[in-house]
Amino acid sequence: MLAFFSIVPMGEGLSLGPQVAEAIKIVEDSGLDHQVTAMGTTIEGDWDEVMSVIKECFDAMHVHSERVTCVVKIDDHTGRSGRIGGKVASVETALGREVRK
Amino acid sequence: MLAFFSIVPMGEGLSLGPQVAEAIKIVEDSGLDHQVTAMGTTIEGDWDEVMSVIKECFDAMHVHSERVTCVVKIDDHTGRSGRIGGKVASVETALGREVRK
Amino acid sequence: MLAFFSIVPMGEGLSLGPQVAEAIKIVEDSGLDHQVTAMGTTIEGDWDEVMSVIKECFDAMHVHSERVTCVVKIDDHTGRSGRIGGKVASVETALGREVRK
Amino acid sequence: MLAFFSIVPMGEGLSLGPQVAEAIKIVEDSGLDHQVTAMGTTIEGDWDEVMSVIKECFDAMHVHSERVTCVVKIDDHTGRSGRIGGKVASVETALGREVRK
Repeated sequence: MLAFFSIVPMGEGLSLGPQVAEAIKIVEDSGLDHQVTAMGTTIEGDWDEVMSVIKECFDAMHVHSERVTCVVKIDDHTGRSGRIGGKVASVETALGREVRK
Repeated sequence: MLAFFSIVPMGEGLSLGPQVAEAIKIVEDSGLDHQVTAMGTTIEGDWDEVMSVIKECFDAMHVHSERVTCVVKIDDHTGRSGRIGGKVASVETALGREVRK
Repeated sequence: MLAFFSIVPMGEGLSLGPQVAEAIKIVEDSGLDHQVTAMGTTIEGDWDEVMSVIKECFDAMHVHSERVTCVVKIDDHTGRSGRIGGKVASVETALGREVRK
Repeated sequence: MLAFFSIVPMGEGLSLGPQVAEAIKIVEDSGLDHQVTAMGTTIEGDWDEVMSVIKECFDAMHVHSERVTCVVKIDDHTGRSGRIGGKVASVETALGREVRK
Protein backbone atom coordinates (compact mmCIF):
# COMPACT_ATOMS: atom_id res chain seq x y z
CA MET A 1 0.00 0.00 0.00
CA LEU A 2 1.15 3.52 -0.85
CA ALA A 3 0.30 6.49 1.35
CA PHE A 4 1.13 10.10 0.48
CA PHE A 5 0.78 12.37 3.50
CA SER A 6 1.38 15.89 4.66
CA ILE A 7 1.05 17.06 8.28
CA VAL A 8 0.80 20.66 9.47
CA PRO A 9 1.01 21.86 13.09
CA MET A 10 -1.24 24.97 13.15
CA GLY A 11 -0.13 28.37 14.41
CA GLU A 12 3.57 27.70 13.95
CA GLY A 13 4.19 30.48 11.48
CA LEU A 14 4.88 30.51 7.77
CA SER A 15 7.90 28.22 7.56
CA LEU A 16 7.73 24.70 8.92
CA GLY A 17 11.07 23.28 7.76
CA PRO A 18 12.30 22.24 11.23
CA GLN A 19 8.98 20.60 12.16
CA VAL A 20 8.76 18.78 8.83
CA ALA A 21 12.37 17.61 9.31
CA GLU A 22 11.33 15.88 12.55
CA ALA A 23 8.60 14.01 10.70
CA ILE A 24 10.98 13.03 7.88
CA LYS A 25 13.40 11.66 10.47
CA ILE A 26 10.61 9.43 11.82
CA VAL A 27 9.81 8.22 8.29
CA GLU A 28 13.48 7.44 7.62
CA ASP A 29 13.85 5.60 10.92
CA SER A 30 10.84 3.42 10.07
CA GLY A 31 12.83 1.64 7.40
CA LEU A 32 9.85 1.76 5.02
CA ASP A 33 10.44 2.64 1.37
CA HIS A 34 9.64 6.33 0.99
CA GLN A 35 9.98 9.46 -1.15
CA VAL A 36 10.12 12.99 0.27
CA THR A 37 8.72 15.71 -1.99
CA ALA A 38 7.86 19.40 -1.70
CA MET A 39 4.18 18.63 -1.17
CA GLY A 40 4.27 15.56 1.04
CA THR A 41 5.92 12.23 1.63
CA THR A 42 4.98 8.86 0.12
CA ILE A 43 5.64 5.69 2.11
CA GLU A 44 4.99 2.06 1.21
CA GLY A 45 4.02 -0.71 3.60
CA ASP A 46 0.96 -2.51 4.87
CA TRP A 47 -1.86 -0.60 6.59
CA ASP A 48 -0.57 -1.06 10.13
CA GLU A 49 3.04 -0.15 9.26
CA VAL A 50 2.01 2.95 7.35
CA MET A 51 -0.55 4.19 9.86
CA SER A 52 1.86 3.63 12.73
CA VAL A 53 4.43 5.90 11.05
CA ILE A 54 1.85 8.59 10.26
CA LYS A 55 0.58 8.44 13.85
CA GLU A 56 4.11 8.86 15.19
CA CYS A 57 4.63 11.91 12.95
CA PHE A 58 1.27 13.23 14.04
CA ASP A 59 2.16 12.91 17.72
CA ALA A 60 5.51 14.63 17.11
CA MET A 61 3.69 17.61 15.56
CA HIS A 62 1.33 17.76 18.54
CA VAL A 63 4.33 18.56 20.72
CA HIS A 64 4.53 21.82 18.76
CA SER A 65 0.85 22.65 18.52
CA GLU A 66 -2.41 21.54 20.08
CA ARG A 67 -4.02 21.65 16.64
CA VAL A 68 -2.59 19.45 13.91
CA THR A 69 -4.03 18.86 10.45
CA CYS A 70 -3.14 16.16 8.00
CA VAL A 71 -4.01 14.95 4.52
CA VAL A 72 -3.46 11.30 3.57
CA LYS A 73 -3.97 9.79 0.11
CA ILE A 74 -3.89 6.00 -0.04
CA ASP A 75 -3.55 3.65 -3.01
CA ASP A 76 -3.66 -0.04 -2.13
CA HIS A 77 -3.29 -2.59 -4.90
CA THR A 78 -3.36 -6.05 -3.35
CA GLY A 79 -0.21 -8.07 -3.95
CA ARG A 80 1.72 -5.19 -5.49
CA SER A 81 4.85 -3.67 -4.00
CA GLY A 82 7.81 -1.59 -5.18
CA ARG A 83 5.29 0.89 -6.48
CA ILE A 84 7.00 4.18 -5.53
CA GLY A 85 9.32 3.63 -8.48
CA GLY A 86 7.13 1.13 -10.30
CA LYS A 87 4.18 3.37 -11.02
CA VAL A 88 6.38 6.10 -12.50
CA ALA A 89 8.19 3.47 -14.60
CA SER A 90 4.88 2.19 -16.00
CA VAL A 91 3.99 5.72 -17.09
CA GLU A 92 7.40 6.15 -18.75
CA THR A 93 6.87 2.86 -20.58
CA ALA A 94 3.46 4.08 -21.72
CA LEU A 95 5.20 7.21 -23.03
CA GLY A 96 7.51 4.98 -25.07
CA ARG A 97 10.60 5.82 -23.06
CA GLU A 98 13.28 3.69 -21.64
CA VAL A 99 12.75 3.24 -17.94
CA ARG A 100 15.45 4.62 -15.66
CA LYS A 101 16.70 2.08 -13.17
CA MET B 1 -10.33 14.52 16.20
CA LEU B 2 -12.25 15.00 12.96
CA ALA B 3 -11.57 12.90 9.88
CA PHE B 4 -13.19 13.48 6.51
CA PHE B 5 -12.71 10.51 4.20
CA SER B 6 -13.72 9.13 0.86
CA ILE B 7 -12.94 5.60 -0.35
CA VAL B 8 -13.15 4.36 -3.94
CA PRO B 9 -12.89 0.72 -5.09
CA MET B 10 -11.29 0.98 -8.56
CA GLY B 11 -12.73 -0.58 -11.69
CA GLU B 12 -16.27 -0.82 -10.32
CA GLY B 13 -17.84 1.41 -12.95
CA LEU B 14 -19.22 4.92 -12.85
CA SER B 15 -21.76 4.64 -10.03
CA LEU B 16 -20.69 3.46 -6.61
CA GLY B 17 -23.87 4.04 -4.58
CA PRO B 18 -24.19 0.43 -3.33
CA GLN B 19 -20.51 0.19 -2.36
CA VAL B 20 -20.60 3.57 -0.61
CA ALA B 21 -23.75 2.46 1.22
CA GLU B 22 -21.82 -0.45 2.72
CA ALA B 23 -19.19 1.94 4.04
CA ILE B 24 -21.84 4.29 5.47
CA LYS B 25 -23.42 1.34 7.27
CA ILE B 26 -20.07 0.60 8.91
CA VAL B 27 -19.75 4.26 9.97
CA GLU B 28 -23.26 4.27 11.44
CA ASP B 29 -22.66 1.02 13.31
CA SER B 30 -19.51 2.49 14.87
CA GLY B 31 -21.61 4.81 17.01
CA LEU B 32 -19.21 7.69 16.32
CA ASP B 33 -20.63 11.13 15.58
CA HIS B 34 -20.62 11.53 11.80
CA GLN B 35 -21.93 13.46 8.80
CA VAL B 36 -22.44 11.93 5.36
CA THR B 37 -22.02 14.30 2.42
CA ALA B 38 -21.82 14.06 -1.36
CA MET B 39 -18.02 14.26 -1.31
CA GLY B 40 -17.14 12.17 1.73
CA THR B 41 -18.00 11.39 5.30
CA THR B 42 -16.75 13.16 8.43
CA ILE B 43 -16.42 11.20 11.67
CA GLU B 44 -15.31 12.31 15.11
CA GLY B 45 -13.41 10.24 17.66
CA ASP B 46 -9.88 9.62 18.84
CA TRP B 47 -7.18 8.40 16.42
CA ASP B 48 -7.69 4.69 17.10
CA GLU B 49 -11.48 4.86 16.90
CA VAL B 50 -11.44 6.83 13.67
CA MET B 51 -8.72 4.79 11.96
CA SER B 52 -10.41 1.54 12.97
CA VAL B 53 -13.62 2.63 11.22
CA ILE B 54 -11.77 3.80 8.10
CA LYS B 55 -9.83 0.51 7.99
CA GLU B 56 -13.08 -1.48 8.26
CA CYS B 57 -14.56 0.53 5.35
CA PHE B 58 -11.34 0.04 3.42
CA ASP B 59 -11.47 -3.74 3.89
CA ALA B 60 -15.14 -3.81 2.84
CA MET B 61 -14.22 -2.04 -0.41
CA HIS B 62 -11.41 -4.55 -1.02
CA VAL B 63 -14.05 -7.29 -1.25
CA HIS B 64 -15.21 -5.50 -4.41
CA SER B 65 -11.85 -4.61 -5.91
CA GLU B 66 -8.21 -5.52 -5.42
CA ARG B 67 -7.33 -1.83 -5.83
CA VAL B 68 -8.82 0.65 -3.40
CA THR B 69 -7.97 4.34 -3.11
CA CYS B 70 -8.79 6.67 -0.27
CA VAL B 71 -8.39 10.30 0.76
CA VAL B 72 -8.42 11.25 4.45
CA LYS B 73 -8.29 14.79 5.85
CA ILE B 74 -7.70 15.07 9.59
CA ASP B 75 -8.14 18.00 11.96
CA ASP B 76 -7.19 17.28 15.56
CA HIS B 77 -7.59 20.02 18.15
CA THR B 78 -6.59 18.61 21.53
CA GLY B 79 -9.38 18.70 24.09
CA ARG B 80 -12.08 19.73 21.65
CA SER B 81 -15.10 17.64 20.74
CA GLY B 82 -18.55 18.18 19.25
CA ARG B 83 -16.82 19.86 16.35
CA ILE B 84 -18.90 18.49 13.43
CA GLY B 85 -21.59 20.96 14.41
CA GLY B 86 -19.36 23.25 16.45
CA LYS B 87 -17.06 24.43 13.70
CA VAL B 88 -19.97 25.39 11.44
CA ALA B 89 -21.61 27.19 14.37
CA SER B 90 -18.46 29.23 15.00
CA VAL B 91 -18.47 30.35 11.36
CA GLU B 92 -22.13 31.34 11.59
CA THR B 93 -21.36 33.32 14.73
CA ALA B 94 -18.51 35.04 12.89
CA LEU B 95 -21.01 35.90 10.15
CA GLY B 96 -23.22 37.54 12.80
CA ARG B 97 -25.96 34.96 12.52
CA GLU B 98 -27.90 33.13 15.14
CA VAL B 99 -26.60 29.61 15.44
CA ARG B 100 -29.04 26.84 14.58
CA LYS B 101 -29.34 24.21 17.31
CA MET C 1 -19.22 19.28 -11.22
CA LEU C 2 -18.79 19.05 -7.45
CA ALA C 3 -15.80 20.53 -5.67
CA PHE C 4 -15.08 20.11 -1.96
CA PHE C 5 -12.45 22.55 -0.76
CA SER C 6 -10.74 23.82 2.34
CA ILE C 7 -8.41 26.82 2.45
CA VAL C 8 -5.99 27.70 5.26
CA PRO C 9 -4.04 30.97 5.63
CA MET C 10 -0.82 29.90 7.39
CA GLY C 11 0.49 31.48 10.57
CA GLU C 12 -2.87 32.86 11.66
CA GLY C 13 -3.07 30.92 14.90
CA LEU C 14 -5.17 28.00 16.01
CA SER C 15 -8.68 29.28 15.32
CA LEU C 16 -9.64 30.46 11.87
CA GLY C 17 -13.39 31.04 12.28
CA PRO C 18 -13.34 34.70 11.14
CA GLN C 19 -11.17 33.96 8.10
CA VAL C 20 -13.29 30.95 7.13
CA ALA C 21 -16.41 33.11 7.53
CA GLU C 22 -15.07 35.48 4.86
CA ALA C 23 -14.63 32.59 2.46
CA ILE C 24 -18.13 31.26 3.21
CA LYS C 25 -19.55 34.70 2.47
CA ILE C 26 -17.89 34.59 -0.95
CA VAL C 27 -19.36 31.13 -1.60
CA GLU C 28 -22.82 32.30 -0.59
CA ASP C 29 -22.60 35.41 -2.76
CA SER C 30 -21.66 33.26 -5.77
CA GLY C 31 -25.18 31.87 -5.92
CA LEU C 32 -23.84 28.36 -6.56
CA ASP C 33 -25.42 25.43 -4.76
CA HIS C 34 -23.21 24.65 -1.76
CA GLN C 35 -22.89 22.90 1.58
CA VAL C 36 -20.72 24.16 4.43
CA THR C 37 -19.31 21.46 6.73
CA ALA C 38 -16.77 21.25 9.54
CA MET C 39 -14.07 19.97 7.19
CA GLY C 40 -14.68 22.00 4.06
CA THR C 41 -17.27 23.37 1.70
CA THR C 42 -18.79 21.65 -1.33
CA ILE C 43 -19.95 23.74 -4.27
CA GLU C 44 -21.56 22.71 -7.54
CA GLY C 45 -21.12 24.38 -10.91
CA ASP C 46 -19.08 24.07 -14.07
CA TRP C 47 -15.27 24.21 -13.96
CA ASP C 48 -14.98 27.95 -14.56
CA GLU C 49 -17.70 28.88 -12.05
CA VAL C 50 -16.24 26.67 -9.35
CA MET C 51 -12.62 27.64 -9.88
CA SER C 52 -13.52 31.31 -9.97
CA VAL C 53 -15.13 31.03 -6.52
CA ILE C 54 -12.21 29.07 -5.09
CA LYS C 55 -9.76 31.63 -6.53
CA GLU C 56 -11.73 34.47 -4.94
CA CYS C 57 -11.63 32.71 -1.56
CA PHE C 58 -7.94 32.04 -2.06
CA ASP C 59 -7.22 35.72 -2.75
CA ALA C 60 -9.24 36.74 0.32
CA MET C 61 -7.09 34.46 2.50
CA HIS C 62 -3.93 35.98 0.99
CA VAL C 63 -4.94 39.31 2.50
CA HIS C 64 -4.37 37.62 5.88
CA SER C 65 -1.24 35.65 5.08
CA GLU C 66 1.40 35.50 2.37
CA ARG C 67 1.23 31.70 2.52
CA VAL C 68 -2.07 30.01 1.79
CA THR C 69 -2.70 26.29 1.42
CA CYS C 70 -5.71 24.60 -0.06
CA VAL C 71 -7.10 21.14 -0.74
CA VAL C 72 -9.66 20.62 -3.51
CA LYS C 73 -11.45 17.35 -4.33
CA ILE C 74 -13.39 17.31 -7.58
CA ASP C 75 -16.02 14.90 -8.87
CA ASP C 76 -17.32 15.69 -12.35
CA HIS C 77 -19.99 13.45 -13.85
CA THR C 78 -20.92 14.85 -17.27
CA GLY C 79 -24.55 15.84 -17.55
CA ARG C 80 -25.34 15.37 -13.87
CA SER C 81 -26.42 18.14 -11.54
CA GLY C 82 -28.20 18.46 -8.19
CA ARG C 83 -25.61 16.09 -6.80
CA ILE C 84 -24.97 17.70 -3.38
CA GLY C 85 -28.27 16.22 -2.26
CA GLY C 86 -28.54 13.61 -4.99
CA LYS C 87 -25.50 11.53 -4.11
CA VAL C 88 -26.54 11.24 -0.45
CA ALA C 89 -30.07 10.30 -1.56
CA SER C 90 -28.72 7.50 -3.78
CA VAL C 91 -26.84 6.07 -0.81
CA GLU C 92 -29.94 6.23 1.37
CA THR C 93 -31.88 4.43 -1.37
CA ALA C 94 -29.15 1.77 -1.49
CA LEU C 95 -29.57 1.40 2.28
CA GLY C 96 -33.28 0.74 1.74
CA ARG C 97 -34.37 3.97 3.37
CA GLU C 98 -36.87 6.53 2.35
CA VAL C 99 -35.08 9.53 0.93
CA ARG C 100 -35.53 12.79 2.82
CA LYS C 101 -36.62 15.66 0.60
CA MET D 1 2.52 28.41 -6.34
CA LEU D 2 2.86 24.64 -6.01
CA ALA D 3 0.04 22.28 -6.91
CA PHE D 4 0.12 18.54 -6.36
CA PHE D 5 -2.63 16.79 -8.29
CA SER D 6 -3.93 13.38 -9.20
CA ILE D 7 -6.72 12.75 -11.71
CA VAL D 8 -8.69 9.51 -12.12
CA PRO D 9 -11.10 8.67 -14.96
CA MET D 10 -13.69 6.38 -13.33
CA GLY D 11 -14.64 2.97 -14.64
CA GLU D 12 -11.45 2.48 -16.62
CA GLY D 13 -10.28 -0.61 -14.78
CA LEU D 14 -7.50 -1.21 -12.30
CA SER D 15 -4.50 0.05 -14.21
CA LEU D 16 -4.44 3.58 -15.54
CA GLY D 17 -0.85 3.84 -16.82
CA PRO D 18 -1.78 4.85 -20.40
CA GLN D 19 -4.30 7.46 -19.26
CA VAL D 20 -1.90 8.90 -16.69
CA ALA D 21 0.78 9.04 -19.40
CA GLU D 22 -1.46 11.31 -21.48
CA ALA D 23 -1.79 13.68 -18.54
CA ILE D 24 1.97 13.65 -17.91
CA LYS D 25 2.56 14.52 -21.56
CA ILE D 26 0.32 17.58 -21.12
CA VAL D 27 2.26 18.60 -18.01
CA GLU D 28 5.59 18.23 -19.81
CA ASP D 29 4.38 20.19 -22.81
CA SER D 30 3.32 23.05 -20.50
CA GLY D 31 6.95 23.90 -19.82
CA LEU D 32 6.18 24.39 -16.11
CA ASP D 33 8.58 23.02 -13.54
CA HIS D 34 7.16 19.70 -12.37
CA GLN D 35 7.81 16.40 -10.59
CA VAL D 36 6.02 13.15 -11.42
CA THR D 37 5.59 10.73 -8.52
CA ALA D 38 3.70 7.51 -7.82
CA MET D 39 0.90 9.36 -6.05
CA GLY D 40 0.51 12.48 -8.16
CA THR D 41 2.32 15.23 -9.99
CA THR D 42 3.53 18.54 -8.58
CA ILE D 43 3.72 21.58 -10.86
CA GLU D 44 4.84 25.12 -10.14
CA GLY D 45 3.48 28.29 -11.70
CA ASP D 46 0.98 31.02 -11.00
CA TRP D 47 -2.70 30.21 -10.41
CA ASP D 48 -3.79 30.61 -14.03
CA GLU D 49 -0.87 28.63 -15.46
CA VAL D 50 -1.35 25.78 -13.01
CA MET D 51 -5.14 25.59 -13.28
CA SER D 52 -4.95 25.73 -17.07
CA VAL D 53 -2.71 22.64 -17.09
CA ILE D 54 -4.90 20.76 -14.62
CA LYS D 55 -8.00 21.64 -16.66
CA GLU D 56 -6.33 20.35 -19.84
CA CYS D 57 -5.47 17.07 -18.09
CA PHE D 58 -9.01 16.91 -16.73
CA ASP D 59 -10.50 17.32 -20.22
CA ALA D 60 -8.15 14.66 -21.60
CA MET D 61 -9.41 12.20 -18.97
CA HIS D 62 -13.02 13.03 -19.86
CA VAL D 63 -12.37 11.63 -23.34
CA HIS D 64 -11.97 8.26 -21.57
CA SER D 65 -14.78 8.53 -19.05
CA GLU D 66 -17.81 10.69 -18.40
CA ARG D 67 -16.93 10.70 -14.71
CA VAL D 68 -13.55 12.10 -13.66
CA THR D 69 -12.33 12.71 -10.13
CA CYS D 70 -9.38 14.78 -9.02
CA VAL D 71 -7.54 15.82 -5.89
CA VAL D 72 -5.49 19.04 -5.86
CA LYS D 73 -3.31 20.27 -2.98
CA ILE D 74 -2.05 23.85 -3.30
CA ASP D 75 0.70 25.68 -1.42
CA ASP D 76 1.15 29.31 -2.42
CA HIS D 77 3.86 31.36 -0.74
CA THR D 78 3.86 34.84 -2.28
CA GLY D 79 7.13 35.75 -3.94
CA ARG D 80 8.66 32.30 -3.64
CA SER D 81 9.61 30.09 -6.58
CA GLY D 82 11.89 27.13 -7.24
CA ARG D 83 10.10 25.37 -4.41
CA ILE D 84 9.83 21.83 -5.88
CA GLY D 85 13.50 21.38 -5.04
CA GLY D 86 13.73 24.21 -2.53
CA LYS D 87 11.35 22.86 0.09
CA VAL D 88 13.10 19.48 0.17
CA ALA D 89 16.47 21.24 0.42
CA SER D 90 15.27 23.27 3.42
CA VAL D 91 14.28 20.04 5.19
CA GLU D 92 17.66 18.49 4.45
CA THR D 93 19.34 21.58 5.85
CA ALA D 94 17.18 21.30 8.97
CA LEU D 95 18.36 17.69 9.25
CA GLY D 96 21.95 18.92 9.18
CA ARG D 97 22.73 17.41 5.81
CA GLU D 98 24.47 18.79 2.81
CA VAL D 99 21.91 19.74 0.22
CA ARG D 100 22.10 17.84 -3.07
CA LYS D 101 22.21 20.08 -6.11
